[in-house]
Amino acid sequence: MQKDEVENMTHKIAILGASGYTGAELVRLIATHPSMEIVALSADRKAGMEVAAVFPHLRHLDLPTLCKIDEIDFDAVDLCFCALPHATSQKVIKALPTNVKVVDLSADFRLRDPEDYAKWYGGEHDAVELQKEAVYGLTEFYRDEIKAARLVAGTGCNAATGQFALRPLIEAGVIDLDQIILDLKCAVSGAGRSLKENLLHAELSEGYHGYAVGGTHRHLGEFDQEFSAIAGRPVKVQFTPHLVPANRGILATVYVQGNAEEIHATLAGAYGEEPFIEVLPFCETPSTRHVRGSNFCHIGVTGDRIEGRAIVIAALDNLTKGSSGQALQNANLMLGEDETAGLMLAPCFP
Amino acid sequence: MQKDEVENMTHKIAILGASGYTGAELVRLIATHPSMEIVALSADRKAGMEVAAVFPHLRHLDLPTLCKIDEIDFDAVDLCFCALPHATSQKVIKALPTNVKVVDLSADFRLRDPEDYAKWYGGEHDAVELQKEAVYGLTEFYRDEIKAARLVAGTGCNAATGQFALRPLIEAGVIDLDQIILDLKCAVSGAGRSLKENLLHAELSEGYHGYAVGGTHRHLGEFDQEFSAIAGRPVKVQFTPHLVPANRGILATVYVQGNAEEIHATLAGAYGEEPFIEVLPFCETPSTRHVRGSNFCHIGVTGDRIEGRAIVIAALDNLTKGSSGQALQNANLMLGEDETAGLMLAPCFP
Amino acid sequence: MQKDEVENMTHKIAILGASGYTGAELVRLIATHPSMEIVALSADRKAGMEVAAVFPHLRHLDLPTLCKIDEIDFDAVDLCFCALPHATSQKVIKALPTNVKVVDLSADFRLRDPEDYAKWYGGEHDAVELQKEAVYGLTEFYRDEIKAARLVAGTGCNAATGQFALRPLIEAGVIDLDQIILDLKCAVSGAGRSLKENLLHAELSEGYHGYAVGGTHRHLGEFDQEFSAIAGRPVKVQFTPHLVPANRGILATVYVQGNAEEIHATLAGAYGEEPFIEVLPFCETPSTRHVRGSNFCHIGVTGDRIEGRAIVIAALDNLTKGSSGQALQNANLMLGEDETAGLMLAPCFP
Amino acid sequence: MQKDEVENMTHKIAILGASGYTGAELVRLIATHPSMEIVALSADRKAGMEVAAVFPHLRHLDLPTLCKIDEIDFDAVDLCFCALPHATSQKVIKALPTNVKVVDLSADFRLRDPEDYAKWYGGEHDAVELQKEAVYGLTEFYRDEIKAARLVAGTGCNAATGQFALRPLIEAGVIDLDQIILDLKCAVSGAGRSLKENLLHAELSEGYHGYAVGGTHRHLGEFDQEFSAIAGRPVKVQFTPHLVPANRGILATVYVQGNAEEIHATLAGAYGEEPFIEVLPFCETPSTRHVRGSNFCHIGVTGDRIEGRAIVIAALDNLTKGSSGQALQNANLMLGEDETAGLMLAPCFP
Repeated sequence: MQKDEVENMTHKIAILGASGYTGAELVRLIATHPSMEIVALSADRKAGMEVAAVFPHLRHLDLPTLCKIDEIDFDAVDLCFCALPHATSQKVIKALPTNVKVVDLSADFRLRDPEDYAKWYGGEHDAVELQKEAVYGLTEFYRDEIKAARLVAGTGCNAATGQFALRPLIEAGVIDLDQIILDLKCAVSGAGRSLKENLLHAELSEGYHGYAVGGTHRHLGEFDQEFSAIAGRPVKVQFTPHLVPANRGILATVYVQGNAEEIHATLAGAYGEEPFIEVLPFCETPSTRHVRGSNFCHIGVTGDRIEGRAIVIAALDNLTKGSSGQALQNANLMLGEDETAGLMLAPCFP
Repeated sequence: MQKDEVENMTHKIAILGASGYTGAELVRLIATHPSMEIVALSADRKAGMEVAAVFPHLRHLDLPTLCKIDEIDFDAVDLCFCALPHATSQKVIKALPTNVKVVDLSADFRLRDPEDYAKWYGGEHDAVELQKEAVYGLTEFYRDEIKAARLVAGTGCNAATGQFALRPLIEAGVIDLDQIILDLKCAVSGAGRSLKENLLHAELSEGYHGYAVGGTHRHLGEFDQEFSAIAGRPVKVQFTPHLVPANRGILATVYVQGNAEEIHATLAGAYGEEPFIEVLPFCETPSTRHVRGSNFCHIGVTGDRIEGRAIVIAALDNLTKGSSGQALQNANLMLGEDETAGLMLAPCFP
Repeated sequence: MQKDEVENMTHKIAILGASGYTGAELVRLIATHPSMEIVALSADRKAGMEVAAVFPHLRHLDLPTLCKIDEIDFDAVDLCFCALPHATSQKVIKALPTNVKVVDLSADFRLRDPEDYAKWYGGEHDAVELQKEAVYGLTEFYRDEIKAARLVAGTGCNAATGQFALRPLIEAGVIDLDQIILDLKCAVSGAGRSLKENLLHAELSEGYHGYAVGGTHRHLGEFDQEFSAIAGRPVKVQFTPHLVPANRGILATVYVQGNAEEIHATLAGAYGEEPFIEVLPFCETPSTRHVRGSNFCHIGVTGDRIEGRAIVIAALDNLTKGSSGQALQNANLMLGEDETAGLMLAPCFP
Repeated sequence: MQKDEVENMTHKIAILGASGYTGAELVRLIATHPSMEIVALSADRKAGMEVAAVFPHLRHLDLPTLCKIDEIDFDAVDLCFCALPHATSQKVIKALPTNVKVVDLSADFRLRDPEDYAKWYGGEHDAVELQKEAVYGLTEFYRDEIKAARLVAGTGCNAATGQFALRPLIEAGVIDLDQIILDLKCAVSGAGRSLKENLLHAELSEGYHGYAVGGTHRHLGEFDQEFSAIAGRPVKVQFTPHLVPANRGILATVYVQGNAEEIHATLAGAYGEEPFIEVLPFCETPSTRHVRGSNFCHIGVTGDRIEGRAIVIAALDNLTKGSSGQALQNANLMLGEDETAGLMLAPCFP
């Protein structure tokens, strides 16, 4: 096949769980992708409905009607995004034909060790063999494995943000591994389109609070797995998320002990060539508003007045770089496309 | 010149007044435009600064440093977007070399009659001859004139919204011309990046109010000009804007007297082929959240319980379809490009 | 009178349905009331819980544990606020001992005519005899009846706002009764603490839309009943509510035909002595932010550029003047207290 | 005591700088205070205007016209709240007659040491002798001194929040003094009613960021002064504030090293009798929404999964407990009133 023919090839895409926010975000991004075509959209309870009825903002697109998963002809699918709830995802993916590439956005394949899975998600894993096969989908650090993978596990959105701030520092050995505190501020769409009292506008607007305080948030499983692997010894961070009255965004304020300039240089060096990670000039600080709706992650480093302390702040959009944008970035790699295809949308500000 | 060569031609673009919201929105949209290149960005008081310092969300783009207008080499510019304040705009555009095509986003060339201009904007026009030349930039209704124009006057954002709801109805004669009420709900970015107490977050958040009540808003000048021209006799509408605590969006609730189904059919017919105007099924109502960040306009029609009354609701994003998206749509036409180039971004929800 | 006697003058209050927003608002207001004591709080599904667990903002108060309605000793209750859902309310109130005064915050007793009730609420009324007895609780217009009443029916929050703008004008005959349009902008707490997708923060924030468009909102039943009674002939208004991303507030923009100055004078005259209704100087316009958290209603009048048209805008807090504040105002009258007791809290701005 | 005598007991109050948010908040609180009367309100640039024109939410109150400071007859004033900008305040207070009690809400008298003042506020203090006399206004810890004081210095709002979380712990010696990190999330009204681009709704809404990162925020001067005094040796904390899209509220997430249960018991013990400080049950976490508009401070303590670490979270309303409520609490003490007079308003939720 000639290069031109390859270029003309449109990849057939299915999205499972298309009635949630990450599903809709995938559709939004793929809408302007040059070489992907959505051929199937599943939504169990909304099967039979048009996308426009569930997400009127996608009304202008020519999309398939929502269907049930078993109505999809997977022979005609090249790659499947799986945006289903945790635990459901493993069952569904296990049953897919193995010729279909899969990017999973749930938590089901993030942890490699079945015991870790049981610890953080409370139950036995239904697809242990796939758990082993799955590649952890933090693109910037698993690029080669992702290119070759059939199944990629999207990371937690908080987990991605914290790792962008910390991985190069742990790798380079420039911070104290026992004194790492991540104070995260998360926007509400991270909790999904779920009917919970604390997600109502009247509850959330104009107020904010910490949750899962004290080291109980499940994304700690990813931090433990990844940071310990890099360091070659157990690393445990403190991590406290807070819910903030905004729809999109994660801001991770990371308190570390080390030399601030060295920390900045390490991050700037690590991300110098990355298309989506922007390390700000020393002492500048990022804001979630400046990455909203985009696949970019902004990172700032400042030294503290206390010698030997530094603050690293990372900002990204939880629905884009934190989940659906990352998923598309991985899919691009898995399909041999340019990693940035469909993802260069500038942030939407104000 | 061969078609291929034409296609390879990149248009050289300048944006004057690039440090305001409409300027930034233009940059955001052009960032993924296939055949435009930004060669100059002016910002009088911020000349010498990088765009990233003024708009950190555009940090990833390779853009020229902000400069003063007189530093721009207009010989190397094909088209110039002018996002300057009212009154300033006319002076600047008057001084531009006539080989440069211009899309103006200010109010300076919206009104064709110098007396109307004086009435609504309080002062003599500085470029009366250009006022005559300028084409009113409501793309869907002035497409042919815009293709041939050198100077296009962007419409008011409220004026655009109201006209999308009403022009086909006035044209078709299906509503009472003397009983038209537009109740608009506008988001705050429409007021620009200006330091006014009533635009502070602490003032605006969680509250809303009417302003320019009683027929004093300047966009009435456009309604009067356009609606009277269509009807062939004076048409005066009532128009009350309200400021709502959101950043982007205009919702025009238009109360008319006529047959609701006929009204719906008229609008559906008028916009059937339009790429950016979506007429919803009868009795569905649009929302600003479903057009946010996009160039789409959604229109819904419902009949009232009172016989012979109907409500037409139109929603668009004031920064996109209401100004910068419209400007780019017009520029595409003026440069012989596909009208939708760079504008098919799906709305950003949630 | 001795101190002990004064203490004995404290009225014993029960609140049924205390886990909703109007219930919580009653507790907030009564917390600083000089002569009321809350002796019982019911919440069916949350019986047995402390109020602090359901509404942590009331944590500092010494309140009874939430209970089931049948656990309340109504012999020890002077007055009962009933903040239960529609339809449930009539059943509960019917079963209460007749010595207990009742202020109902549901819709069950707002419409005097069983047929009207059936039309708007879809079903037979379960307590038709009480429906006849109930006094419509718009304090400023039913003051004497309320003083003598055993059962007062709280008005709809939108219905109250519209009536404050219109009743004196209909009474005085200064507007055209067939050309009245109410465009309302409502905050989200009016929809209660209910788990609906469209009330999620991620759905609502930064967007707004009309609903119940075309004359289908139930509060029209109240408008029809009240305005027709005043006018002595059927009056039908157009009424379109919109949901705005804020927690508290209703802004009613009312389009009428009549002389604006006469309209202003009529309203100023009607409300001159009212403690909670403030008519602004001619041509000033109110804002929801300036009544938030208070029992005040601000009303502004402006003439339109079109001769013979006027815009009346009324703003109030739906949870306070629109429901729980109104309820307390009525309870004060029913108990022989100063009408303003516990209600003079200044609005909470910003 | 006769009624007349009671009336004579009303304290005459002046508020300087009444056109800012803390000034307005004082008026809001005093509006329902049983024994205070506002006799003068100054606002330099708005002298001659009615309060209703500057703060329409106070329209219902009978208040003096705004005036210039030198128009006030201080012989008729018992106590003066000074809500003027930093640096201005010291000049004005220095010139006041010494019979007038003063509660200052600026930063001018918070730091006892002129060198500290110069370090954090950059300049020589204009009233060094008053600086010595001023009592630090953190009511719960300086109650006796405040009762006897003529001049009380209101604390910084962030400084108050952090001290409520930490003072008893430092006093009791239950945490490591060299490992204290305060990550604060502040609402926007803390920045005042000032015309700054970053305070515009369009800039702030839906986004959040850290500022004064790295130990440069001026409230650190207060932390250093107070914590070092308690500990009897220098204590330096890390403190990073973040600006969150909400109008009222401070949430301080404080990371400490110590035994979590001991920490909880220490705080519960220290605040057991305090009317405004609520220590939540162990492992519960506070939210700003539950203290909004009130003088309450909620504090929660949770242990971390890492042995020997704890998280203390404190929430208060920056305009109330963080400044104007605190100021009124202090004024009550200085005037011999009940400390809680006018301050028992329940929080305004939702």
